[in-house]
Amino acid sequence: MTTPIRVTIWNEHIHEQRDEPVRKIYPQGMHGVIAEGLRERLGDRVEVRCATLAEPEHGLTEEVLAATDVLTWWGHAAHAAVEDQVVDRVVQHVLGGMGLVVLHSAHLSKVFRRLMGTPCTLRWRRAPEGERELVWTVAPGHPLTRGVPHPLIVPQQEMYGEFFAIPEPDQLVFVSSFEGGEVFRSGCCFRRGAGQIVYFSPGDQDFPVYHQPAILQVIANAVEFVNGGRERLKISPQPSQMEPDWYLSEAR
Amino acid sequence: MTTPIRVTIWNEHIHEQRDEPVRKIYPQGMHGVIAEGLRERLGDRVEVRCATLAEPEHGLTEEVLAATDVLTWWGHAAHAAVEDQVVDRVVQHVLGGMGLVVLHSAHLSKVFRRLMGTPCTLRWRRAPEGERELVWTVAPGHPLTRGVPHPLIVPQQEMYGEFFAIPEPDQLVFVSSFEGGEVFRSGCCFRRGAGQIVYFSPGDQDFPVYHQPAILQVIANAVEFVNGGRERLKISPQPSQMEPDWYLSEAR
Amino acid sequence: MTTPIRVTIWNEHIHEQRDEPVRKIYPQGMHGVIAEGLRERLGDRVEVRCATLAEPEHGLTEEVLAATDVLTWWGHAAHAAVEDQVVDRVVQHVLGGMGLVVLHSAHLSKVFRRLMGTPCTLRWRRAPEGERELVWTVAPGHPLTRGVPHPLIVPQQEMYGEFFAIPEPDQLVFVSSFEGGEVFRSGCCFRRGAGQIVYFSPGDQDFPVYHQPAILQVIANAVEFVNGGRERLKISPQPSQMEPDWYLSEAR
Amino acid sequence: MTTPIRVTIWNEHIHEQRDEPVRKIYPQGMHGVIAEGLRERLGDRVEVRCATLAEPEHGLTEEVLAATDVLTWWGHAAHAAVEDQVVDRVVQHVLGGMGLVVLHSAHLSKVFRRLMGTPCTLRWRRAPEGERELVWTVAPGHPLTRGVPHPLIVPQQEMYGEFFAIPEPDQLVFVSSFEGGEVFRSGCCFRRGAGQIVYFSPGDQDFPVYHQPAILQVIANAVEFVNGGRERLKISPQPSQMEPDWYLSEAR
Repeated sequence: MTTPIRVTIWNEHIHEQRDEPVRKIYPQGMHGVIAEGLRERLGDRVEVRCATLAEPEHGLTEEVLAATDVLTWWGHAAHAAVEDQVVDRVVQHVLGGMGLVVLHSAHLSKVFRRLMGTPCTLRWRRAPEGERELVWTVAPGHPLTRGVPHPLIVPQQEMYGEFFAIPEPDQLVFVSSFEGGEVFRSGCCFRRGAGQIVYFSPGDQDFPVYHQPAILQVIANAVEFVNGGRERLKISPQPSQMEPDWYLSEAR
Repeated sequence: MTTPIRVTIWNEHIHEQRDEPVRKIYPQGMHGVIAEGLRERLGDRVEVRCATLAEPEHGLTEEVLAATDVLTWWGHAAHAAVEDQVVDRVVQHVLGGMGLVVLHSAHLSKVFRRLMGTPCTLRWRRAPEGERELVWTVAPGHPLTRGVPHPLIVPQQEMYGEFFAIPEPDQLVFVSSFEGGEVFRSGCCFRRGAGQIVYFSPGDQDFPVYHQPAILQVIANAVEFVNGGRERLKISPQPSQMEPDWYLSEAR
Repeated sequence: MTTPIRVTIWNEHIHEQRDEPVRKIYPQGMHGVIAEGLRERLGDRVEVRCATLAEPEHGLTEEVLAATDVLTWWGHAAHAAVEDQVVDRVVQHVLGGMGLVVLHSAHLSKVFRRLMGTPCTLRWRRAPEGERELVWTVAPGHPLTRGVPHPLIVPQQEMYGEFFAIPEPDQLVFVSSFEGGEVFRSGCCFRRGAGQIVYFSPGDQDFPVYHQPAILQVIANAVEFVNGGRERLKISPQPSQMEPDWYLSEAR
Repeated sequence: MTTPIRVTIWNEHIHEQRDEPVRKIYPQGMHGVIAEGLRERLGDRVEVRCATLAEPEHGLTEEVLAATDVLTWWGHAAHAAVEDQVVDRVVQHVLGGMGLVVLHSAHLSKVFRRLMGTPCTLRWRRAPEGERELVWTVAPGHPLTRGVPHPLIVPQQEMYGEFFAIPEPDQLVFVSSFEGGEVFRSGCCFRRGAGQIVYFSPGDQDFPVYHQPAILQVIANAVEFVNGGRERLKISPQPSQMEPDWYLSEAR
């Protein structure tokens, strides 16, 4: 495939502007680090742009989404501020085939909860210096795991623990443990409509997780994995009434 | 287990009152036929009651749901008339462990669509005399299939065809074909939160499908399969913050 | 169902006879402890018998298996000593609908490896005093989890870690972490043919894991969950040639 | 990825030499048609070679497999003639990450049955002129479906019907119906070890199915989907004993 994957990196971009310690870690915003990480790893196989909450329509107009093959989503402090109309629009594009990569605290984003149909809640703990997270591969050979160490060690992390109130993933790829003994399904794949979704939990505003090469590698893998190409399918919001033998004239 | 399963059969109960041909097939309502079919097959293993759209709060008050182990749902003409507050309540109980059996045209019910996170649309066709549906078992030995012929033949049915816009089922049990050549995933299992859900498509207001013993057998099987007992789990709508080693004092 | 589940507990029964420390923990054999645990928990819902490697045909004659609804399997030191003819027989019964509960080191048993089609290998470590295992529920409300604490704490255990070379389970119910930081998919469900299989890893000859009530509770839950009743289906070893419309005469 | 996928097309190549009508349809062998179809569709993204039963070691030496990223398999008349040593070798490579595409009657091949752990039997019927098969997509947007009509119409086919004795697929992509009313899970994905497997049933020696562009499109899609790259993982045939904190020195 010579046509590049058109990636839109969405970030609420609040902590990096509001919280001094976060700004120090991510002066150009987490989206900036992720965008740079994708460009480095995927080169001309991607075209990357960013969008943030503060932009009109959060930077996710119909035009932008129609020209997006893969959307990545980071949110935490302002899930409620995301307009329902934009959420509807994103959900429709995912159902039609736009890939979606949901990162860390975006497990509580409106978009993810709507697509999952469950609360997507979990147990958590933020130790002042974080806890070590070990990310174990339970599906070796899966496209998400290419070039990823086993285990992937995140020195400082917020703890995310089960029960994680998601539907059983179509494929479970990563399972994490934390110093405190908790476990978490940290890399999960879901198909919804014609869209492929990946949830990947490591990543945080308070620790430099997105500066870690192996984490960026997983996100790059995820972008390639969820890409469904430029064709958008129509998953009708209404049932479709069919004549007998309709397919004889339609099908090739 | 000697405690009976407390089943609530919900039916919008519109066609049977409004449409003369339907009333002839189901004079006591589809819920009446299903209730009787469960009592005959499960005896004192169930306690069955019915509830309908016209009742206050559609007959699904907090008290009723708290005393319901398994809810079955039939709707078609009036999905939009189901109050969102009742939908919220049903969804919360399913997430907490109440079993749910979704029947036929209830694929478009608010409850099912919310829990699936997808449009749940499909292709359909209603021939005047219906079409023969063959319901094939693809998971022999699964609890849903006990006493069910392979194939189960429904002489007259509305056609339901793919693509059926649901998430991939946790377990696919039945696949149907129709005279017109279409196929449909007609028996599907999903876990959401602590709740077990079954969708079973054969069943219709215009044809006497619910008078067919094998269909009632599947519904009885489904009731036993989705029953999770009387304990309701708390799937928190908010994440839970935990102290280190919290489980040392809590766990047995 | 008033007919009891007929359970056969199979144990190679070598460590308990050969190794003094093991004998002290399990003087009546691990099968004895498990049998007693099932009788206590399931009462007249089960009929339990035991069988061991040293018996003729390992105690698993055609007659025994034909009268077994659920087989549990523990082996470690002598997987290779299990006769292939007995393995074939067990596999056939599982495919026909006999439930199977595979315990701990039986992940390497011929029966389990054959049914999985993969090596079923893993990483492991046996510290002199063991390591604490925390068994987390990732499918609350699943029948395997009834009455099981979250997490279930096993004070002393052998470490089992990923990658565990099994097919992706049809349902993943438990995930464990160990003091050393490793994780393991410790409670897994698989359907094969008409048979339901559960793999449950906690349990060991060197530590008193099978004396722990919560562990016995999971095994009792597993016995009820995998029970498919007394009917055995014929999963033909050969394809079946069918006449057109064969089902019109056969089906009810 | 500019490195081409190295594909080996394996065919027992018996019917085309022995049976005059088959030779007329496939004078260069089914492998020849498939090889040509891949080259046309994937261009320099693939390097294709063929291997057949009659060659020494069936053309599947260790050297060939080590240089194969994706293996496709067609067999029917001579499953038993495939040497167990070659079967072992193929299975090891699949577990290590070699992609595998299993075609039509190869559902009964030793390789597929071994990897599935089940009999892989089915119902079948061969009408003199075949029956029309309609191949319906139940996972739109899945890589296997790119450019594939819905339904894909195969005018003449051998009937394959359920129950198909396979494990529940990790992903079900296609479901077929036949003129006789039977249904079949005709496009199935399985991961085993580090290897991705696709089973695709349409295709037959007696009918010109492999001359149909949409069928070749699915096979081309499958080749790209199961390709796991050139790295082969070691899925150890034996458990691996680990020291505490082994990953601190190993991991990056």
